Amino acid sequence: MSSASTISSICFEQGCWFKRERMIRVSDKRVKRLASPSSLSFRVSANSSVKSEKDIRIGLLGASGYTGAEIVRLLANHPHFGVTLMTADRKAGQSMESVFPHLRAQKLPRLISVKDADFSTVDAVFCCLPHGTTQEIIKGLPTALKIVDLSADFRLRDISEYEEWYGQPHQAVELQKEVVYGLTELSREDIKKARLVANPGCYPTSIQLPLVPLLKANLIKHENIIIDAKSGVSGAGRGAKEANLYSEIAEGISSYGVTRHRHVPEIEQGLSDVAQSKVTVSFTPHLMPMIRGMQSTIYVEMASGITTKNLYQQLRTSYEDEEFVKVLDEGAVPRTHNVRGSNYCFMNVFPDRIPGRAIIISVIDNLVKGASGQALQNLNIMLGFPETTGLLHQPVFP
Amino acid sequence: MSSASTISSICFEQGCWFKRERMIRVSDKRVKRLASPSSLSFRVSANSSVKSEKDIRIGLLGASGYTGAEIVRLLANHPHFGVTLMTADRKAGQSMESVFPHLRAQKLPRLISVKDADFSTVDAVFCCLPHGTTQEIIKGLPTALKIVDLSADFRLRDISEYEEWYGQPHQAVELQKEVVYGLTELSREDIKKARLVANPGCYPTSIQLPLVPLLKANLIKHENIIIDAKSGVSGAGRGAKEANLYSEIAEGISSYGVTRHRHVPEIEQGLSDVAQSKVTVSFTPHLMPMIRGMQSTIYVEMASGITTKNLYQQLRTSYEDEEFVKVLDEGAVPRTHNVRGSNYCFMNVFPDRIPGRAIIISVIDNLVKGASGQALQNLNIMLGFPETTGLLHQPVFP
Amino acid sequence: MSSASTISSICFEQGCWFKRERMIRVSDKRVKRLASPSSLSFRVSANSSVKSEKDIRIGLLGASGYTGAEIVRLLANHPHFGVTLMTADRKAGQSMESVFPHLRAQKLPRLISVKDADFSTVDAVFCCLPHGTTQEIIKGLPTALKIVDLSADFRLRDISEYEEWYGQPHQAVELQKEVVYGLTELSREDIKKARLVANPGCYPTSIQLPLVPLLKANLIKHENIIIDAKSGVSGAGRGAKEANLYSEIAEGISSYGVTRHRHVPEIEQGLSDVAQSKVTVSFTPHLMPMIRGMQSTIYVEMASGITTKNLYQQLRTSYEDEEFVKVLDEGAVPRTHNVRGSNYCFMNVFPDRIPGRAIIISVIDNLVKGASGQALQNLNIMLGFPETTGLLHQPVFP
Amino acid sequence: MSSASTISSICFEQGCWFKRERMIRVSDKRVKRLASPSSLSFRVSANSSVKSEKDIRIGLLGASGYTGAEIVRLLANHPHFGVTLMTADRKAGQSMESVFPHLRAQKLPRLISVKDADFSTVDAVFCCLPHGTTQEIIKGLPTALKIVDLSADFRLRDISEYEEWYGQPHQAVELQKEVVYGLTELSREDIKKARLVANPGCYPTSIQLPLVPLLKANLIKHENIIIDAKSGVSGAGRGAKEANLYSEIAEGISSYGVTRHRHVPEIEQGLSDVAQSKVTVSFTPHLMPMIRGMQSTIYVEMASGITTKNLYQQLRTSYEDEEFVKVLDEGAVPRTHNVRGSNYCFMNVFPDRIPGRAIIISVIDNLVKGASGQALQNLNIMLGFPETTGLLHQPVFP
Repeated sequence: MSSASTISSICFEQGCWFKRERMIRVSDKRVKRLASPSSLSFRVSANSSVKSEKDIRIGLLGASGYTGAEIVRLLANHPHFGVTLMTADRKAGQSMESVFPHLRAQKLPRLISVKDADFSTVDAVFCCLPHGTTQEIIKGLPTALKIVDLSADFRLRDISEYEEWYGQPHQAVELQKEVVYGLTELSREDIKKARLVANPGCYPTSIQLPLVPLLKANLIKHENIIIDAKSGVSGAGRGAKEANLYSEIAEGISSYGVTRHRHVPEIEQGLSDVAQSKVTVSFTPHLMPMIRGMQSTIYVEMASGITTKNLYQQLRTSYEDEEFVKVLDEGAVPRTHNVRGSNYCFMNVFPDRIPGRAIIISVIDNLVKGASGQALQNLNIMLGFPETTGLLHQPVFP
Repeated sequence: MSSASTISSICFEQGCWFKRERMIRVSDKRVKRLASPSSLSFRVSANSSVKSEKDIRIGLLGASGYTGAEIVRLLANHPHFGVTLMTADRKAGQSMESVFPHLRAQKLPRLISVKDADFSTVDAVFCCLPHGTTQEIIKGLPTALKIVDLSADFRLRDISEYEEWYGQPHQAVELQKEVVYGLTELSREDIKKARLVANPGCYPTSIQLPLVPLLKANLIKHENIIIDAKSGVSGAGRGAKEANLYSEIAEGISSYGVTRHRHVPEIEQGLSDVAQSKVTVSFTPHLMPMIRGMQSTIYVEMASGITTKNLYQQLRTSYEDEEFVKVLDEGAVPRTHNVRGSNYCFMNVFPDRIPGRAIIISVIDNLVKGASGQALQNLNIMLGFPETTGLLHQPVFP
Repeated sequence: MSSASTISSICFEQGCWFKRERMIRVSDKRVKRLASPSSLSFRVSANSSVKSEKDIRIGLLGASGYTGAEIVRLLANHPHFGVTLMTADRKAGQSMESVFPHLRAQKLPRLISVKDADFSTVDAVFCCLPHGTTQEIIKGLPTALKIVDLSADFRLRDISEYEEWYGQPHQAVELQKEVVYGLTELSREDIKKARLVANPGCYPTSIQLPLVPLLKANLIKHENIIIDAKSGVSGAGRGAKEANLYSEIAEGISSYGVTRHRHVPEIEQGLSDVAQSKVTVSFTPHLMPMIRGMQSTIYVEMASGITTKNLYQQLRTSYEDEEFVKVLDEGAVPRTHNVRGSNYCFMNVFPDRIPGRAIIISVIDNLVKGASGQALQNLNIMLGFPETTGLLHQPVFP
Repeated sequence: MSSASTISSICFEQGCWFKRERMIRVSDKRVKRLASPSSLSFRVSANSSVKSEKDIRIGLLGASGYTGAEIVRLLANHPHFGVTLMTADRKAGQSMESVFPHLRAQKLPRLISVKDADFSTVDAVFCCLPHGTTQEIIKGLPTALKIVDLSADFRLRDISEYEEWYGQPHQAVELQKEVVYGLTELSREDIKKARLVANPGCYPTSIQLPLVPLLKANLIKHENIIIDAKSGVSGAGRGAKEANLYSEIAEGISSYGVTRHRHVPEIEQGLSDVAQSKVTVSFTPHLMPMIRGMQSTIYVEMASGITTKNLYQQLRTSYEDEEFVKVLDEGAVPRTHNVRGSNYCFMNVFPDRIPGRAIIISVIDNLVKGASGQALQNLNIMLGFPETTGLLHQPVFP
């Protein structure tokens, strides 16, 4: 213990410690951030008690889905966050290993029903519950908790829009007002102060990251933004549906929810905010025969006099200090293969044959930067840790 | 002999026989079209001499590639066309079975070098040679042969455009003038009279089939046609390239040849012809982790006052009598899975969120309607057979 | 109609019609076998009434599963069998196109509930219902019908064994006595006379085809037959199960039902019959990330003094006249890719490093030779048609 | 050299080293091992000089293949090992990012030719060169270097056997004598003292891990060990070969190198050593349509009186303290999905239907525990670091 704090203080005095990582201030008593020796090493807490190992106690609601499992995977190597509470109503009583055998090497609490959860024992919560059920549950959580919600339930500021797209009235109208939309690179300052972060959808993440800086800089027109998006199947979750069977998905592709996908209002909200006028996009998602990965191919009209070089330069500048957003070298094509399993977003800009137009391509892993990775990035910030903590897994290729 | 012609005459007299299949006239002596009994059954000629079995003798140049093999597969059940000559320079001397074991049940001639081929022994030729090498070879073929060329070498009417995109001067300028571009449904009458047909590329087929009728009817604008196309890997052929290894392709997607794909001039030629003015398209192909299949998602601006209903109705009308082009029921999404292994093109039209725009989706199997199937469809027509002959394989799903 | 019978008689008088196909005798009045003109061409009956088109009227029970769809695909090009009745209880009232859009080009009857089916309007039935439900239903069918049952319900002669493995008493004990087990190549003579054929399972087909001739000839020992089998996922059907989701299956493999798979008693029944003593096998199935295809890798001990050459020669001899079973050239490895979509079984024998042992590999498409293809092969025989009718589709590769 | 051995000896003197990351003290200047703050955090060295960042300088020979890239991926999060030298003859002059774009976030040296490498600047070397070329090169390396060779060139103790299977005489006979075969869990003590470790092949790793303890305990017979192994395609490397194209591999499986695979002598060497008599195995590898993953399904005869329970108990005991080898709960089937991207080996034992026999299943990721991960595990040990350092990535699922 003392050794660790010694290291810490040395490092901070020397001003060298977390070079590119923001300063950490811990006001909350629960967040002791001891940087205890064991927490500094990159390892799994298989041999010791769950409770004592790491300093921040994490509750995970909805642990039996893919995003829940992905958070557990990422936290395995997080030096400070330890999962001490896991809920999964339909699998209550089971071990996580029986639901996700790949997590067998980790020491994890048994799954319980959310109604049996004691939230006084955790410091923060990832909420991976389905859309529509989340507002009620989060409304009931202790206000001292930091919460990152991965569902869509708090993403839309306009509660009437929520009702329109999700077919039911918003259940937590008051709470909605304090929500911070957690597209990390674009809202970092607000996230620092947030108690409840609505984690963005995967499509909106891959689309807003390139478009927001370009709209903000007035480099592209607000009209006729056409987004042809492609996603791996894991985005559809682990529910047993005929449409997602291997035999139905492999070796073929198809569009779905053409013009009616629920991510549309979220995308338009983000673009309209920065454009300062209502932006209506053409958005066509396609289901790909792959587990992970998402590409948005975006066709835009450039503002008068603007070239793809200007767009490229803007994106380079916007993201030059970012660990997780990489604007590739000119001409290099982003491929989903190259971000698989990681929190990176790769993007690039290409000239179109049609004069005045440009093509923007961005790729992410839908389960990481498009869900659980960004959620962890946000919670790191909310709790005063370097945002890259536990997230520097490199992409798995091939 | 007599039995077969008897059948034919009975049938035609009754006017019922080949209901939707066009009249057959056989002027060429070589093309006897005997419809001998054995040729009428749906079977493989495994036990009898290749030469005697079927009445039209087919030469296949470049038999060791995927499109060559696919032609052999389709001809296995063609009652009139029998492959009697196969060339494959690098595999000369081998049996087709050793190159493509799945064709083992068929009786096929041994592969020879193209320079050793005796073209006086065949009635028609499918040319599956690589781009750039084909012009010279076809120039040297006997003029009595019917030829369908699957390469890009004769697709561009404008030979300077050929030179620009393929980096070498056209080697058969005179021949180019008599070439008929073989998008079957759109050029059927010309194909009937053709001696040399340039078989369309896969992307151009999937794109022109929906767009040509709409442009012809002035239902869509010529500007800002944006094509986001997705293809299976078999389109890249059987050449050993790192980029096409399983480990590089599976579980991920990527764009390639952004705005510079060689199918662009072919697409623009076709659209410009019908639009009667130069059409420049935005065309971005994507490589998908699947063997077969191609989808073009096309974003268009409609002409003033036109609705997606008008577009839909036009396509329904244009293709109502076609066996191989199906406009799906309203709202039904075409999926590549549903045309796999078959000569069908499925398409549909969808409203866009952006007013005045529409989304068109068309799917084909790139190796069948996008290559070998359409080639056979064309040769059937050139030789006076019902164009569906040997092509009514239903899609293989799942 | 009259035209059709004219043709038939012409053809049969000439005695030339189906060269390599066995003679056809039609005793049953229901089986008119008109060979109407339309049935002679290789095409889909899209434009005419279902009832009048083909001479044998087929009922398909359980049409909404993969094996049902596969039968429809195969029958599309069958000159004599036309589907006129289709049941699917949970999809009753829907069109087949809405359940399987790839079959859209065919004219098919609407799906009805089995209880609403009028079996007096059909000549033969394919039964693709789930295990356990089939005995009752088949018991209730008119005895004039020819029936091929693709479920496991009638495969086990020993009804106590059925009860042991399927956990419920046999519901049609009397009927079981007249059942013929339909491994076509091994039971052809019995199938000719059968009214009710139990179509073999996919694993038993791929295993018995190589092993039965070797056991019969006493070339291998009865002990220690070890079968490591690999199957594509389509064998698990279209039911929505978490375990068969794309994200659970792709990019990985796993064994299942180790030593307890329900195909075990069927395999052992077949081998014991020919061995004339109880054979107990080691059988481990593995689930592969592929839709179609099945490989059995079989490890055997040879009888004293026997070599792999003897085994090879025996298999060559056994199958030399078979269209659908191919013993490859020495050393050539059977690959599932090379039988995909077809009714072929490819096999071969290899020496083992351990003296006295041999390795046998056989591959099939589990949905064709392993299910619907063999079912059609059987019904062809039962109704006096050449067994290859409608089955000579060549494998789809790549 | 001295640095490394110093570390080692210090550590061993204390006798406490590896329980799971014991204290580290370092005397060598290069090897400052300060546990400097930056090195303790789990992050990528993107912004600082490669040389100064980490204390152990790693050379990577053959960096342009999959195993080379995998080592780079794993080292990204290794607190002590930094890659400072990378060779790739055919890609010399290129950046690693241009060869493997997924590694773009890391700061890496430029690729150079092996002949231009200055080995005095590194402390240890991973050698990922092709079989047959490696002996010469390693022979020429400074003797002070610690080396882990991932090729097969030093795996066979018997140099005549090497010549027999690889078709060329051994080029470094003297060196062979000091080689330690690096199956970590089974040779940990020898690896600690080794200078040159021959990293095991992927198949031999997945096979020896379960079989060696069982043979050592005399629980299984030496005869008739039958191994049906299944591998993902990445094991074949990144070389452009027709056989490994996506279109040739996807959606199908096949055996290869039946009884003649080059891993046979390595497997038999390991089993014979522990059996203390020559063991000859039946070994049939199969190529699976997946990138990563390997399963060995092993059929064994148990010693007299032994049950599968005994086998299970033996394996549990043998591996109870191991981080990377997990014997699953009884009845749980190991799946390759559940170790993907990780250094884990999952295994289990099942009863066979045939009395006296058992079935053993083990799964690994062929690129991690089967290659680069185990190589890192070995180098960690050779240099006195906790063997799990940098290796506790959890499996990526789905």
